[in-house]
Amino acid sequence: MINTLFLPELREMLAEQDEAGLIEFCTALHPSRTAEFMEGLGREESWQVLQHAEPHLRSEIFSFFPEDRQLEMLASEDEQQVGALVAVIPADDAVDLLQQLPEQRVEQVLALVPTTDRRDIRRLQTFPEGTAGSIMTTEAACLDENLTVRQALEQLGRQAEKLETIYYIYVVDDTNHLRGVLSTRMLVKSFGKLERTVADLMDTDILTVNANDDQEEVALMVAKYDLLAIPVVDEHRHMLGIITHDDVIDVVFEEATEDVQRIAAVDPLEDSYIRTPIPTLSWKRGLWLGILFFASLATAFALKVYETELDQYAWLVAFIPLVIGSGGNTGAQSSTLIIAAMAAGDLSLKDWPRVISRECTTGLLLGCYLAALSLGPAILFAPDLLSACVLPITVFLVVMCGAFSGGMLPLIFVRLGWDPALMSNPVVAGLNDIMGIIIYVNIAMLLL
Amino acid sequence: MINTLFLPELREMLAEQDEAGLIEFCTALHPSRTAEFMEGLGREESWQVLQHAEPHLRSEIFSFFPEDRQLEMLASEDEQQVGALVAVIPADDAVDLLQQLPEQRVEQVLALVPTTDRRDIRRLQTFPEGTAGSIMTTEAACLDENLTVRQALEQLGRQAEKLETIYYIYVVDDTNHLRGVLSTRMLVKSFGKLERTVADLMDTDILTVNANDDQEEVALMVAKYDLLAIPVVDEHRHMLGIITHDDVIDVVFEEATEDVQRIAAVDPLEDSYIRTPIPTLSWKRGLWLGILFFASLATAFALKVYETELDQYAWLVAFIPLVIGSGGNTGAQSSTLIIAAMAAGDLSLKDWPRVISRECTTGLLLGCYLAALSLGPAILFAPDLLSACVLPITVFLVVMCGAFSGGMLPLIFVRLGWDPALMSNPVVAGLNDIMGIIIYVNIAMLLL
Repeated sequence: MINTLFLPELREMLAEQDEAGLIEFCTALHPSRTAEFMEGLGREESWQVLQHAEPHLRSEIFSFFPEDRQLEMLASEDEQQVGALVAVIPADDAVDLLQQLPEQRVEQVLALVPTTDRRDIRRLQTFPEGTAGSIMTTEAACLDENLTVRQALEQLGRQAEKLETIYYIYVVDDTNHLRGVLSTRMLVKSFGKLERTVADLMDTDILTVNANDDQEEVALMVAKYDLLAIPVVDEHRHMLGIITHDDVIDVVFEEATEDVQRIAAVDPLEDSYIRTPIPTLSWKRGLWLGILFFASLATAFALKVYETELDQYAWLVAFIPLVIGSGGNTGAQSSTLIIAAMAAGDLSLKDWPRVISRECTTGLLLGCYLAALSLGPAILFAPDLLSACVLPITVFLVVMCGAFSGGMLPLIFVRLGWDPALMSNPVVAGLNDIMGIIIYVNIAMLLL
Repeated sequence: MINTLFLPELREMLAEQDEAGLIEFCTALHPSRTAEFMEGLGREESWQVLQHAEPHLRSEIFSFFPEDRQLEMLASEDEQQVGALVAVIPADDAVDLLQQLPEQRVEQVLALVPTTDRRDIRRLQTFPEGTAGSIMTTEAACLDENLTVRQALEQLGRQAEKLETIYYIYVVDDTNHLRGVLSTRMLVKSFGKLERTVADLMDTDILTVNANDDQEEVALMVAKYDLLAIPVVDEHRHMLGIITHDDVIDVVFEEATEDVQRIAAVDPLEDSYIRTPIPTLSWKRGLWLGILFFASLATAFALKVYETELDQYAWLVAFIPLVIGSGGNTGAQSSTLIIAAMAAGDLSLKDWPRVISRECTTGLLLGCYLAALSLGPAILFAPDLLSACVLPITVFLVVMCGAFSGGMLPLIFVRLGWDPALMSNPVVAGLNDIMGIIIYVNIAMLLL
């Protein structure tokens, strides 16, 4: 929904080069609203309006534009102005945007970014996607431990403009070693004792993450300890940057969406569903549909092997989808529950005996229940009562198999170092299809 | 993993009633670590140690105990001490814990909580689970707009002890109407201009949520605008409380897990997988397995109807699981992608024409691809080339149907006001099973 409320006024101000009016427009509202009101403008017009905000506000308003628009602007506007903007965008966001631009353009723009900012961006570019390093910002509030509360508040006030968060203050020594942390809350609480030093107030027992840690683990840690930000260090405990709460929320959203896609046998999309190009989308779906196809093909061969048996008891054929479905659905439930519990940090590999016992008991109950449900239709379709028993017995065993394999396979994959979300459902589905057919036909041969 | 490092020392200090030692233990480390080191102690021992921390620290350490332990303590320890603890726990957390205790115990404990805290708890108890009101905390930093920066910093310093966050300061009038917001960052930036007033600095364009809003919408809003906290108001814009970033992270985790469970046809669990009692787990799984069972039963009836046709072309039987699976897997991919995109706020109902066109194009590509894959096996199994064509044509149509129905059904369910995550996959699966059989047999009859 594009908000057109201010469009005529904005266009008029641009036409009349009304500097004062444009500056007022940029500063009057929350940057998110300012960005909203600019959505109806053309790229070129928005860019002109943006030049009337002072640099940090400009970067904030820019951050609320849709990503498409951001990329268009970085790709086509005046290099000098783009360079100035990139210099004030938080380095982690700048890296995300730049990696989507043509390399040549990135070089042109980066050449116009001041050296310190450029160095930050270059360093962040070296961390692989999905690591703590790739989502951290290098702009943390760092102070010396010998400052008094008064000096600290003064310095912080001066730094505030260019920092993403000032609510945790990190104390580092000359070689950038992390020595302690101090919350702004502590500083404010000490407003009555302005002569105390940072060293008195700081906490030296600090939770940190390593730049190469998985972003998902970082998110779990921040969530567990209710942190606003967590410092990122290298192996020698040198301070590299911080990861703030808003980046963590983004990671949680991103990982949740990816897990859901993996569970539905879609290779995780890098972009939103609606923005992923059709060929990419088809490839990421086709990949797993192909694998699942070969699993079904194995089932077809199993059915071919049992052709004569099935010919003999033709009424069994009608229940093939039901038998396969019961095992498949139970297995998908189990593996998904286990994967989700592991993603939320509620379950780990060492809980395997409990998973087995829980899945066996649940499988037993669900097996009995679905077997009972299937008795009626079996009696209806089967020639005699003994034949009718084939279906409930099969359903019971297939559900037990589904629960057991669905519960164990994700743990086995984790043990082997494979991604459980990616592997489990296709393998569980394939396994249960074939097991279903084998159990079905063998129970029939045994009883009849 | 229980950390046993300090256990002997702690037990010795308890036995010797070493007050100073225990106070030192409680204050020396981050509350999360203190809680970790106490995990090896018995409930009674932990409680005794806890009494040596001053009230707010006690509440913090307590918040890092596992929930089981927290509930045990609240249920069995001395009422007077429990009441004192409940008074200092943030009201939203207190409500979550109390609702898991027997009603009689809750009344006993609440009677011992000071009136203002009790009123907060009572009020929060009235908001239904899943609403903004149920996750907010009533302890926000509220200041008068006529204060100077100096006075504001002083007041904030005094309030800091008992507030969950002091980083947004809300400006309310005498009747508790929300007038503006001011970040602590702004206050700190104005450290050099201590005589300016709060009214000068505050922002009056405030993002708020209503107490009855869905917690998922609140999470999306906080994520979109990178907020630390968002104020909760009633319909007359009276300030009721705030929702902080850590509650939002919890909501995102919770909703993601629930969505995944719904997609795997499990009724969302209220607790983690490992802590859900087996009967509850079985019921929440059995409910949907039953529904899916009846969908498969419909397929069995469809197969029964086509019994004579299938008898005639017996080789078709082997591919039934493959045909059904191709449609089902494609449909599950589509519906899951749509549900996840809607949950992430990337897609809404009005995008339906784009969803149709995307799903049709993707379905076309995937259909051709799986049809091509199925040609080989069909030639292998079928008596002649014409017969072999039945399988690829069927697979193509079934995949198209799967993509289309999987894409549209979640949108239709949203339009009808039903939960798309809960309804889509079972309905899509059932529909595609039957469609698969009907298409398969009819193509066979048409060609042969």
